[in-house]
Amino acid sequence: MSLKNQFTDFITELQNSICSGLEELEPETKFRSDFWERDGGGGGHTRVVSDGKVWEKGGVNISEVHGELPELIRQRFNVAQGWFHAAGISLVIHPRNPFVPTVHANYRYFELYDEKNGEPVDAWFGGGADLTPYYLFDEDARHFHQTHKNACDKISEQLYPKYKQDCDSYFFNAHRGEARGIGGIFYDYHRTDKNFSLNDWFDLAQSCGNAFLDAYLPIAKNRMDTIYQDAHRYWQEIRRGRYVEFNLIHDRGTLFGLKTNGRVESILMSLPPRVRWDYDYNPEDGSQEAKLLDVLKNPKNWLE
Amino acid sequence: MSLKNQFTDFITELQNSICSGLEELEPETKFRSDFWERDGGGGGHTRVVSDGKVWEKGGVNISEVHGELPELIRQRFNVAQGWFHAAGISLVIHPRNPFVPTVHANYRYFELYDEKNGEPVDAWFGGGADLTPYYLFDEDARHFHQTHKNACDKISEQLYPKYKQDCDSYFFNAHRGEARGIGGIFYDYHRTDKNFSLNDWFDLAQSCGNAFLDAYLPIAKNRMDTIYQDAHRYWQEIRRGRYVEFNLIHDRGTLFGLKTNGRVESILMSLPPRVRWDYDYNPEDGSQEAKLLDVLKNPKNWLE
Repeated sequence: MSLKNQFTDFITELQNSICSGLEELEPETKFRSDFWERDGGGGGHTRVVSDGKVWEKGGVNISEVHGELPELIRQRFNVAQGWFHAAGISLVIHPRNPFVPTVHANYRYFELYDEKNGEPVDAWFGGGADLTPYYLFDEDARHFHQTHKNACDKISEQLYPKYKQDCDSYFFNAHRGEARGIGGIFYDYHRTDKNFSLNDWFDLAQSCGNAFLDAYLPIAKNRMDTIYQDAHRYWQEIRRGRYVEFNLIHDRGTLFGLKTNGRVESILMSLPPRVRWDYDYNPEDGSQEAKLLDVLKNPKNWLE
Repeated sequence: MSLKNQFTDFITELQNSICSGLEELEPETKFRSDFWERDGGGGGHTRVVSDGKVWEKGGVNISEVHGELPELIRQRFNVAQGWFHAAGISLVIHPRNPFVPTVHANYRYFELYDEKNGEPVDAWFGGGADLTPYYLFDEDARHFHQTHKNACDKISEQLYPKYKQDCDSYFFNAHRGEARGIGGIFYDYHRTDKNFSLNDWFDLAQSCGNAFLDAYLPIAKNRMDTIYQDAHRYWQEIRRGRYVEFNLIHDRGTLFGLKTNGRVESILMSLPPRVRWDYDYNPEDGSQEAKLLDVLKNPKNWLE
């Protein structure tokens, strides 16, 4: 079976297992399904949870789109004509309890062709996962990073240190000089090279994708019944505003999707359910909120 | 007195009169003041209202900045070196009551120099005002447009029709195929030409800026005591999400400010206080909410 078909099978199964895993912690609701088609070819399966007791809002989406290269991609790769195949899984989960972190993960595979139905002339993988806590628990950050490091190490021990740095650099609100969260892993444009084959990168996507529930569910389970006050919720909503700022101002995937006529509701499922912007909001010195901000401004190596 | 000094005097007085006018409707709070300085030269005066009974959040900001051209402007104008002076007033008001529309206005003047302290080699005005209702009252839309048309007509009757179209085109959430609100006026890069002098454009800024309170306050006063339910507030928060999307994805001024190290809190004071994103939220057919959406997807000429 072709790599692209293997990858599509993988993300289809992963979507199922992640939704099932998340539903196990949620007593009040289930994920709903929306299937959609893309005019130029392909489509997707969006699964969304809303208004749960544990999951206030979340989406676990897969898509497999193909066809002629959109104008914007032709410009970016400086080609006059071409066809593409792109598939991926993308998830963002916004828990209700401010002590449970928001989480994001995405694994994607891209093929480029000179001719319709031809052999790929270029192909690459990208992916990553990152955690956005509202209150910082060092052991949660370490667990999330360690689980992803273990998943990367199965392919090569060289990978995690670089991916950790790239994650801190990418998920960064440059206009505020602070990271979106406490990071994780991020990689892109992984082609065949002298050390790794495309099959290695597919193994990496599988290893990391399959590690998602182990990385996140124990944290959520451990924090989801923590008693919280209005002030914790207030801070969560303020910080969710920073999440929106990153996704709409800086995130390449979001902006690319919106500019190439992607399905708006599937792309913007990543936005938090309730958000707050106050003018010049600053937490008290020495508070738990200030402690989080300090780490976002000075990212840590969690596994040292 | 130089045009740039006259303009700075104008926006300083306008900020005062607009804040005073808005405070007259607000029984519970006043605008607070933050003065700030810019590292490269100049600074601003940010005035913000928060948590009022009538004004849930709002800012009326002026700034006057100057110095060497930032890298990003040099690229945009394709010049190797240069100095600039930029001054403007920018306001966004988010009322609490969903029947009172959000409003935005901005008037700005820019000078460009080849030499430090030299004569301007280029100079232009820009500006506009637009209204974003959550519930549509045709008479409010007509009043806002008519007041601004009258202000434009004092300079020339040719102006309003073009500015109205340009406003609809500019304040447009292309990714959703809908306008941000019901428009108003918008113009940019107004230099001396065969029909108008820079002094004419200064007159235009004054005429429109001074019309702001007449255009907006009667609408706010008329709607601010309307009884509303949770469902009206819900819709307001959903629509505020679209306001955020426009400002962070599409608004040139916001993105330019953030990318040239503008003062983040003054720029992002435009974001609404409380916002909501639901997956695939659609109002009921035939509802007041659907009626608004229909007009946003098919902008109207309010004065015909």
